[in-house]
Amino acid sequence: MDYAKESLRLHGEWKGKLDITPKMKLETKDDLSLAYTPGVAAPCLEIEKDDTKSFELTGRGNLVAVITDGTAVLGLGDIGPEAGMPVMEGKCVLFKEFGGVNAIPLCIRSKDTDEIVKTISLLAGSFGGINLEDIAAPRCFEIEARLKEICDIPVFHDDQHGTAICVTAALINALKVVGKKPEEITVVVSGTGAAGSSIIHMLKDFGVKEIYGFNINGIVLKEDKDKYDFLTQELCEITNSSNKRMDMAEALKEADVFVGVSAPKLLSKEMVAGMKRDPIIFAMANPEPEITVDEALAGGARIVGTGRSDFPNQVNNVLAFPGLFKGALSVRATKITEDMKMAAARGIASLISDDELSETYVIPSAFDPRVADMVAAKVAEVAVATGVARKAE
Amino acid sequence: MDYAKESLRLHGEWKGKLDITPKMKLETKDDLSLAYTPGVAAPCLEIEKDDTKSFELTGRGNLVAVITDGTAVLGLGDIGPEAGMPVMEGKCVLFKEFGGVNAIPLCIRSKDTDEIVKTISLLAGSFGGINLEDIAAPRCFEIEARLKEICDIPVFHDDQHGTAICVTAALINALKVVGKKPEEITVVVSGTGAAGSSIIHMLKDFGVKEIYGFNINGIVLKEDKDKYDFLTQELCEITNSSNKRMDMAEALKEADVFVGVSAPKLLSKEMVAGMKRDPIIFAMANPEPEITVDEALAGGARIVGTGRSDFPNQVNNVLAFPGLFKGALSVRATKITEDMKMAAARGIASLISDDELSETYVIPSAFDPRVADMVAAKVAEVAVATGVARKAE
Repeated sequence: MDYAKESLRLHGEWKGKLDITPKMKLETKDDLSLAYTPGVAAPCLEIEKDDTKSFELTGRGNLVAVITDGTAVLGLGDIGPEAGMPVMEGKCVLFKEFGGVNAIPLCIRSKDTDEIVKTISLLAGSFGGINLEDIAAPRCFEIEARLKEICDIPVFHDDQHGTAICVTAALINALKVVGKKPEEITVVVSGTGAAGSSIIHMLKDFGVKEIYGFNINGIVLKEDKDKYDFLTQELCEITNSSNKRMDMAEALKEADVFVGVSAPKLLSKEMVAGMKRDPIIFAMANPEPEITVDEALAGGARIVGTGRSDFPNQVNNVLAFPGLFKGALSVRATKITEDMKMAAARGIASLISDDELSETYVIPSAFDPRVADMVAAKVAEVAVATGVARKAE
Repeated sequence: MDYAKESLRLHGEWKGKLDITPKMKLETKDDLSLAYTPGVAAPCLEIEKDDTKSFELTGRGNLVAVITDGTAVLGLGDIGPEAGMPVMEGKCVLFKEFGGVNAIPLCIRSKDTDEIVKTISLLAGSFGGINLEDIAAPRCFEIEARLKEICDIPVFHDDQHGTAICVTAALINALKVVGKKPEEITVVVSGTGAAGSSIIHMLKDFGVKEIYGFNINGIVLKEDKDKYDFLTQELCEITNSSNKRMDMAEALKEADVFVGVSAPKLLSKEMVAGMKRDPIIFAMANPEPEITVDEALAGGARIVGTGRSDFPNQVNNVLAFPGLFKGALSVRATKITEDMKMAAARGIASLISDDELSETYVIPSAFDPRVADMVAAKVAEVAVATGVARKAE
């Protein structure tokens, strides 16, 4: 199927992928008096007395805003806020289909960090959570960090953390297959932007012994720290502990795992062949991965995952965000913490039993109906246990 | 029925009055590839090339944002943004039920005009229209005026103009019943805030000969202009042409029509009795009108309308805004003009034939299924004819 052509046709037919519908009928004056004036004054006054009641008496408790500035949409780059909206609507569709969470798409006509932060923070009383989407780095980091400070609801930049959760989930199971422990392994991460930096942080939290981060300028090195943006500076502290200047082929000779969130065809069969025993390759550049599945296998890879749905082990963010927000909303969490992200990763991984686990099945399918509820349950449990929940579940 | 108690119970059950649902099924990888990546890149790129395509390829073309700052909610006053949301959700329900228009509720945590204008203007690419709601005067006027300047989509403060449209519609028919022309009549308007000032402007546009405006300080007078806010200063130019200092009872002696958007029990039976022949009374203070229907009739009123659903001639904004936005969206109007408002009023009035017209039936019921389509058709027609439409219909 020509997805582009057919998708364009369907978008013209749908005229928006979301429908907003009342939950009640409005057929009589009584119906109107209960859903609207004069009856509606009663829930208003309850919320005035205690504004946390807005989570129970309005849709806020199950509502996420999916917000972009349109500057880093898919792999298309800065295409503008309105042009980003088909993706935002799509994300809202996924929130509902996979997590049962209502979501509204919003775009902001600004590239100014202060303006974006201000706009979103002033709207926070309308939602139960905020999913930032397709905002260019490095602006996206500051926006997320500042909003997390200001807002009393979870703020989550999916491009960063969604991928990190799914890669960690896949790695948990892949390590079982090859019989290695995180404390023993070395990982090469290609790409240190939004997704890559979050992956590095999360893998470090997961206990990975050594990580080498690569970007367009080569390996991340402490001695080059002064040249880096604040984000890469942070990575200096947790990667390349012995401060070695290497190219990727050299680094891979020490590596058990390759994680790519970078560009097509960066990894060769020979480089895979140079890795330690049973190479694990997550090549997630989209739509063309860092190495094709066939080439990776030909190089000796034991486990290969990509972002694509037409190969086994699809590392797809949709495994994480619907359940993550569902869980966070269910206990009215004030934020999404590292512990909650790790709980989500472990929840996803746990759905594959030891019997089922194999080289071509280290991560559940995007359509596995158990995923969102499992993630939600694990996330809610950890939120309550770590004191970021405002409500027991 | 105890509306307050039952409404509170229902709001706790509904947990939000709106549901956001995908228009398509997501059951296969193809479904996902068409509604989301990779197919979704195609509509994104179309919009990047021509951002007006966002009205066709996203939900924008049939989406209104209902936005408040929570400072003038119903008659409850400044109860806070979150506390205003049950009303905003209710409004969204009405948009869909009566006009088939998708609407999302948003509240802004600010009382600063600049911040509110900035926030809304940066979001304008997400919607096809903006309905401001329950924002306190005089801030609401500046916010609406500035947004109209900045935004390329209709911005409409319903508390002002919705009531004005419905009063004008009712008056058109009421004048037919009593056999008077607008050019012959004098109207007393009690209340010169958001609704009152818009009513005065619209009745003047309608051709009413003389209007006396009253507020808490008495009659609006040119010689007091320096003491007024900018809004009331504007009214000086179009009311009280001979600059008479009178109390309301004196003014009513010259009046054919009383329009109240003020406070309960301001009008007495005796004051009605002092009016010109066949008094027309629209007493719309809510929930208790300026005079009860019984008292007004006892004072000799020929036609009485209120904001209440339990009496004839309910002047209810729901007659106007769903069709008004439906019409504006259908031709992708850039704004809602005075001409479009008048077309809406005439459209509403036209639904009652001369045969049906009577003292107790000058305005259609809120549940009359013909209203929104009639209003939409008239509004679209005028928008196209006056050059504010970006699309023919």
